[in-house]
Amino acid sequence: MGTETLDQGVFITFEGIEGCGKTTQVKRLARRLQQLGIPVVLTLEPGGTPIGRNIRRVLLDSRNRALTPLAELMLYEADRAQHVKEILLPALEAGKCVLCDRFSDATVVYQGVARGQDRHLIRLLNNAVTRGIRPHLTFLLDCPVRMGLSRALGRNMNGQDRFEKEALSFHRRVRNGYLELARKNKKRFVVLDATASRKEIEEEILRHLEKFVWRSGISWANRFTG
Amino acid sequence: MGTETLDQGVFITFEGIEGCGKTTQVKRLARRLQQLGIPVVLTLEPGGTPIGRNIRRVLLDSRNRALTPLAELMLYEADRAQHVKEILLPALEAGKCVLCDRFSDATVVYQGVARGQDRHLIRLLNNAVTRGIRPHLTFLLDCPVRMGLSRALGRNMNGQDRFEKEALSFHRRVRNGYLELARKNKKRFVVLDATASRKEIEEEILRHLEKFVWRSGISWANRFTG
Repeated sequence: MGTETLDQGVFITFEGIEGCGKTTQVKRLARRLQQLGIPVVLTLEPGGTPIGRNIRRVLLDSRNRALTPLAELMLYEADRAQHVKEILLPALEAGKCVLCDRFSDATVVYQGVARGQDRHLIRLLNNAVTRGIRPHLTFLLDCPVRMGLSRALGRNMNGQDRFEKEALSFHRRVRNGYLELARKNKKRFVVLDATASRKEIEEEILRHLEKFVWRSGISWANRFTG
Repeated sequence: MGTETLDQGVFITFEGIEGCGKTTQVKRLARRLQQLGIPVVLTLEPGGTPIGRNIRRVLLDSRNRALTPLAELMLYEADRAQHVKEILLPALEAGKCVLCDRFSDATVVYQGVARGQDRHLIRLLNNAVTRGIRPHLTFLLDCPVRMGLSRALGRNMNGQDRFEKEALSFHRRVRNGYLELARKNKKRFVVLDATASRKEIEEEILRHLEKFVWRSGISWANRFTG
């Protein structure tokens, strides 16, 4: 996605391990932007479309422990293909600010780094399904694995999902995978200390976004009061 | 799959348009082989595993008309990845005769030829998920599109599924796609006239299988009475 698409919309993704607080932050940011009168689309993967919600159920259902890593990868890409076509492309073409809770980086890290699936295949699939859409900005909420998991455990009244049941070493590979991606994509990634308070993280995200929006000459930059 | 795997099992697939009668024939063949004391596994795609049955529901549900061709392709490959790992590989390694109602040829024809999805991507995905498994023998039940569709319509008390609702031209592309595949893979494919009676088709399948089994030196060849 070149600079010309910035006139057409801004694509911001949130990434991090289970319980890092990204879902809270993506919602807070959506509210703040709406208050500024900026047209926002808040969405997520997997499950951003009606079809995707059926796929999400298969992916997270802890009864599906037999799900093979390759089938898991294909299900994520199916969800993404549907999401890109049905939600992301139309929203970006309509000039909206799209906030997405997980995107293709999650597949690189969870299925590639943590599960050890073929990274070349993952890159190829991500390219095929995203149709050239790339996030302009990615917020990585980083925190120690034990802290994230205990938060995730605390909020789930219905028991753990298939990912939360993974071993600690799996989640450590995810965390390290994200940090490595961030190092390799310094321009796009903003790494945030997710052990800070919600309010502090929210303000830091807003500061970074404001800077990005001014720098990119986006029409609604002047809606920020600074 | 080289000749050495013939000691380990025989993999036979059934293909054709909707209503061609393959599901009837695959069941008849399974019964006949069981009567001969040959260890048979009867399975299908999509939906040969518990996880696959959830995926099948998404694929066939006629309410999912919004399903994009690329998401559809990924869902078929997810189902296949799970099926190969959970059912096909173990059955073939145990020396069984595996009969499968649709396999990777169906993706080449439905998603590649009829939907016009990238054939290179399809080949790559099929290779990735099948782990080198290839059918030893493929029975293509060929019949005119109108005949197949009227049969498919007749049996469905619950209304048409997502594929049966496709236009006639779609099903013609599927039929032609299968015939072209058969021409390109003459050694593997047996094209059968699906307008013949069920009994005639059943006997012809058995004759072809017997010939194949003798030619390949499979241990249970002598169970056929000839």
